[in-house]
Amino acid sequence: MVNVAVDVMGGDNAPVEPVKGAVNAISSGNDIKVYLVGKKDIIENELNKYSYDKDRVQVVDASEVIETGEPPVMAIRKKKDSSIVKGLNLVKEGVCDAFVSAGSSGAILVGGQVIVGRIKGVERPPLAPIFPTDNGISLLIDCGANVDARASHLVQFAKMGSIYMEHVLGVKNPKVGILNIGTEEEKGNMLVKEAYPLLKNCPDINFIGSVEAREIPKGSADVVVCEAFAGNVALKMYEGVGSTMIGALKETFTTSALTKLAYLLVKPALKKTLKRFDATEYGGAPLLGLKGLVVKTHGNATHKEISTSIIQCVTFKEQEINKKINETINMLDN
Amino acid sequence: MVNVAVDVMGGDNAPVEPVKGAVNAISSGNDIKVYLVGKKDIIENELNKYSYDKDRVQVVDASEVIETGEPPVMAIRKKKDSSIVKGLNLVKEGVCDAFVSAGSSGAILVGGQVIVGRIKGVERPPLAPIFPTDNGISLLIDCGANVDARASHLVQFAKMGSIYMEHVLGVKNPKVGILNIGTEEEKGNMLVKEAYPLLKNCPDINFIGSVEAREIPKGSADVVVCEAFAGNVALKMYEGVGSTMIGALKETFTTSALTKLAYLLVKPALKKTLKRFDATEYGGAPLLGLKGLVVKTHGNATHKEISTSIIQCVTFKEQEINKKINETINMLDN
Repeated sequence: MVNVAVDVMGGDNAPVEPVKGAVNAISSGNDIKVYLVGKKDIIENELNKYSYDKDRVQVVDASEVIETGEPPVMAIRKKKDSSIVKGLNLVKEGVCDAFVSAGSSGAILVGGQVIVGRIKGVERPPLAPIFPTDNGISLLIDCGANVDARASHLVQFAKMGSIYMEHVLGVKNPKVGILNIGTEEEKGNMLVKEAYPLLKNCPDINFIGSVEAREIPKGSADVVVCEAFAGNVALKMYEGVGSTMIGALKETFTTSALTKLAYLLVKPALKKTLKRFDATEYGGAPLLGLKGLVVKTHGNATHKEISTSIIQCVTFKEQEINKKINETINMLDN
Repeated sequence: MVNVAVDVMGGDNAPVEPVKGAVNAISSGNDIKVYLVGKKDIIENELNKYSYDKDRVQVVDASEVIETGEPPVMAIRKKKDSSIVKGLNLVKEGVCDAFVSAGSSGAILVGGQVIVGRIKGVERPPLAPIFPTDNGISLLIDCGANVDARASHLVQFAKMGSIYMEHVLGVKNPKVGILNIGTEEEKGNMLVKEAYPLLKNCPDINFIGSVEAREIPKGSADVVVCEAFAGNVALKMYEGVGSTMIGALKETFTTSALTKLAYLLVKPALKKTLKRFDATEYGGAPLLGLKGLVVKTHGNATHKEISTSIIQCVTFKEQEINKKINETINMLDN
């Protein structure tokens, strides 16, 4: 049985979508038990909407909520009875294998490190969201946890990302690229120039060299390694262009009676295409390298993303990802 | 009369599109003379296709071509008779006001600094491409010239970008944002944290604070200031997502007879929408802060982008942009 703590209070669609996602996950045919963390009466109220296996749901009361705008370090320190702190503590204590939250990224990143703690040898735990690409999906690592990272961190990101991509997402011998501003080896900033030869000489990964941001949506690399500032820019630009273009497209279809008719004709095919570019279809971003699994979903996650994220925790545990990370990281260090 | 040197040998569509763009520019009703730099016989061959005012075209023979892959510093040093070196020398010698090229970015950036030279007080000349947004256009500065920039550079980028946006592109009192990974003031890497208060206290610009990459396509800021690595990632991700989505959309319209019919109905409106997102519609990226104007167009620039870029050189000269940059930069330094 895989035990997953779910933050019922986090994200734009709390508590409705986290509870729905959790109920769907335990009904998915996997051996999952969910620990729903948040205000007890709110959770019970939501749960009343569904019929489900009561042995697989435990409500964990948490009286406080960490808001998105709150300074993370302070929030983790002060709000001991928040859903995020309590959920992370369930992982720390070994009651749960994983914690899934759509709440404050900052609090989850800080809390993950402070409460759950890093695997020995892991210097910085990266946040690794999944990107839809022309080829399927790619992992962008790191996307927000560690700005001003060092080259040695990038090497660890590459290893951890490869393990996750191969064993959780099923991409064999994943191609690892380093995010760069050109494809020639001499291109890049100081960090990339330092990290490039280290990655090139790293026996544990399938390094393919530099990847320009332009190539990411094409799926040129399965794992794209970067420092968190550039990674976050890439991720958010991806989302921003996508939503702006979709908005413009919708507008286009409403310009006249003819375009409205066109929309009706193309609607089913178009929906399928747009779904392919919807990052929320693919599950949340794991914060890798912790003694347990912490997953951050999009703030606007629906039950689908929550449920996919919970189910991915099963593969994470079954595949012993943390054992694999531990072995790879500490082989390097010795 | 504004004299513009045009690199006939640079870019994917050389020599056809640069020559066509130049001929269109001198026929645009502006007082422009073009200096077509490249292999003389090739240029004359192209020119024979058009009728044009011969007083406004001068052919400048250049026997060498700098290829995209060549190491830039070496190329500029060795290929003295290349179109890029000769074009930049025309600006240096005062024969031309500006140089427009679709050729090797690296060679243009290096050559611009080494041959044309910086305006006194300018620490690093940034490359500032124009982005189409939901609101019109924005300037992203710097997008590839100066990786590992310092905070003081970012302040100069903000000032130069504001001047260009206001006086060349006609956006009054342009809103300046700093590219960041969150909107709170304490967010960011070391560089952003150092630059933020400097920008906030800079009297010459209309600083609006942090802008996340997600907001750029929405047009939240008219000028987005950043260090070149992050800027290049943002720019190329913008282009990559755009082209991937357009590709997927085209595919969608060909899935069945119905979707093909839908395409016919929506085609005119859709073309208009897609044109709005086509960065090549808006002219090339100026390399600001040089003693003269150097403009880098997209490598795949067509005559339209070349001609728009040449015409923008007129406004640049008329509005005395370099005089304005000189005054603003050196006011700060004293």
